[in-house]
Amino acid sequence: MDGTALVYTNTQFTQLAAKTAHGLLRHGKRYQILAVMDSASAGQDSGIVMEGKANGIPIVENLEAYLNSGAQKPDYLIIGIASAGGKIDPVWVPTLRLAIEHGISLVNGMHHKLEDHPELAPLAQKHGVQLVDVRKAKPIEDLSFWSGEIFQVGCPILPVIGTDCAVGKRTTARFLEEALEKQGIHAPMIYTGQTGWLQGGKYGFIFDSTLNDFVSGELEAAIVRCWKEERPDLILVEGQAALRNLSGPCGSEMLVSGRADACILIHPAGRTYYKGWEWTGKMIPPIADEIDLVKAYGVPTIGVALNTKVVDQETAFAEQSRLETELDLPVALPIEDGVDRLLPPIHELIQSFTLPTS
Amino acid sequence: MDGTALVYTNTQFTQLAAKTAHGLLRHGKRYQILAVMDSASAGQDSGIVMEGKANGIPIVENLEAYLNSGAQKPDYLIIGIASAGGKIDPVWVPTLRLAIEHGISLVNGMHHKLEDHPELAPLAQKHGVQLVDVRKAKPIEDLSFWSGEIFQVGCPILPVIGTDCAVGKRTTARFLEEALEKQGIHAPMIYTGQTGWLQGGKYGFIFDSTLNDFVSGELEAAIVRCWKEERPDLILVEGQAALRNLSGPCGSEMLVSGRADACILIHPAGRTYYKGWEWTGKMIPPIADEIDLVKAYGVPTIGVALNTKVVDQETAFAEQSRLETELDLPVALPIEDGVDRLLPPIHELIQSFTLPTS
Repeated sequence: MDGTALVYTNTQFTQLAAKTAHGLLRHGKRYQILAVMDSASAGQDSGIVMEGKANGIPIVENLEAYLNSGAQKPDYLIIGIASAGGKIDPVWVPTLRLAIEHGISLVNGMHHKLEDHPELAPLAQKHGVQLVDVRKAKPIEDLSFWSGEIFQVGCPILPVIGTDCAVGKRTTARFLEEALEKQGIHAPMIYTGQTGWLQGGKYGFIFDSTLNDFVSGELEAAIVRCWKEERPDLILVEGQAALRNLSGPCGSEMLVSGRADACILIHPAGRTYYKGWEWTGKMIPPIADEIDLVKAYGVPTIGVALNTKVVDQETAFAEQSRLETELDLPVALPIEDGVDRLLPPIHELIQSFTLPTS
Repeated sequence: MDGTALVYTNTQFTQLAAKTAHGLLRHGKRYQILAVMDSASAGQDSGIVMEGKANGIPIVENLEAYLNSGAQKPDYLIIGIASAGGKIDPVWVPTLRLAIEHGISLVNGMHHKLEDHPELAPLAQKHGVQLVDVRKAKPIEDLSFWSGEIFQVGCPILPVIGTDCAVGKRTTARFLEEALEKQGIHAPMIYTGQTGWLQGGKYGFIFDSTLNDFVSGELEAAIVRCWKEERPDLILVEGQAALRNLSGPCGSEMLVSGRADACILIHPAGRTYYKGWEWTGKMIPPIADEIDLVKAYGVPTIGVALNTKVVDQETAFAEQSRLETELDLPVALPIEDGVDRLLPPIHELIQSFTLPTS
């Protein structure tokens, strides 16, 4: 553990923009979370608000209220929301300033760096606090170029991809990791986003902030290192965006350079248009169509999971049942019902695995 | 024009690694090329060696020989070969050093920067010469995030993509640009690689050295700017790599975020395996299969061109004829026969274009 932390979501804890916060509350090995700061959801248990299950981590009004309550002073304040284009939102600055003045270090997953911020950077230096810019790009000499060594990895590689952004790819991968570990199957997840790093992921890289030419090589290097050090039974890979996501299609690197042996596909039930791009009228394709596209890359889909954020329970279960028949694949509801339905095809993948001839 | 230049390929002028040099000789608006330096092909005309057509630009043994000949001193020396992973090859260093000592500025398209080179950077400063690192990444605040403004571009957008790397995507796009201009059709090419910049491209960005999250936005921004400033009849886009290229699949950004209205697909006749990855046994898919994959992204292929580097003329023409029947599409041989066969479907694309409803 790096230390204790508060998670700051301003007013957006219930929004998709807060998925970093949700990830930190669901699964965290790097930071021990003391509280969430969100004026729109203050006074409640963060687990209840997030998914109806108490986790004992309170939501407080703001940093001032937290500090005045006499509760334990945290080591870090983590920005738990995302902004489009990864900018430091000016409305966050008073809170970030106050944290620095109280000797609390800041953790930032935005593209724009705190260390470049004209006001906060000098203030942090003055107060001797750390500014952790998670998405800071690696220097060229530390980046790996794809080598093909991935063909030596002696276990199946299973990416968890989605038909759109913000559907719970990382969360589902974490659930799978935990469910498999319970069965004695070691299946570490390769993280590919800043939240995965914040959660304390041991193997991975941050896709978004990697120079394009090195994305495949960094992915390969993380998978190969995981294989060499842990000899797992299976390697899960956190997907990013979606193959046909308008603002940044992604996934072919995982399917092709990441030597995917199969994949799990997550779909947002009840969502019609690509998230954030509704005005373009571009519809998310049907799951069967996405499965065909994945197959064109040579990769079979062995299971589906549904994000049910915008549908009620009855609709969720009806959709699960309908899709299992239509697709002839297991369909999980991770939040309502866990991921157990996805385990049998994963067991089969592990049992039938043979090293690719290359 | 930025000035006169020598192109340095060491001993690799006849190799695919020298495609930057070939691009500069075929089409250059930024630098006037005085000579190529390559000890393995010295004494010949570079156009003859490259494609059997004289261009009056000689190949000389090396920089020393060029300078001793009393020929015009160039403003620049351009590294005209690529290395895997984009490193500055130590065997190039004596030549680069000699250039600096003679007051010649260096132009470098590798990922690794001359300005970071422990020996060459201080030497350049001492001699007051410029080090132009073409692939230097832009700072975050200069990068564009995808906005959807591309749906306002009022002409067709036509990427030229390939089934593999190094098949002549940029060259074919340039040929198309020139052939269309001759017909009074203004069809500028958006460059996406360092050679496009070196050639003096007005609109574009360098895919490889862009942080992954901004690739789609930089592509969109270049296309939108080209549309706003020039109101062209068509916009060509230089493709990169290939959709299923092992070491770095690429193309979905162009098809999806780049709002491709159609595409031209280049295939290397006689090449079985992905270039550079022959040992993996991964075969380049048949053209029809690649056309299906492009279609899965919603984009029709309206023409094919063949790279015929490794086949003889007879085989090239036979393959052209066979594929035209099989695919029911025009198939061009750009080097042997030009790109005229691809013009009718492009005219049709322009005539039938209507702005997408979004």
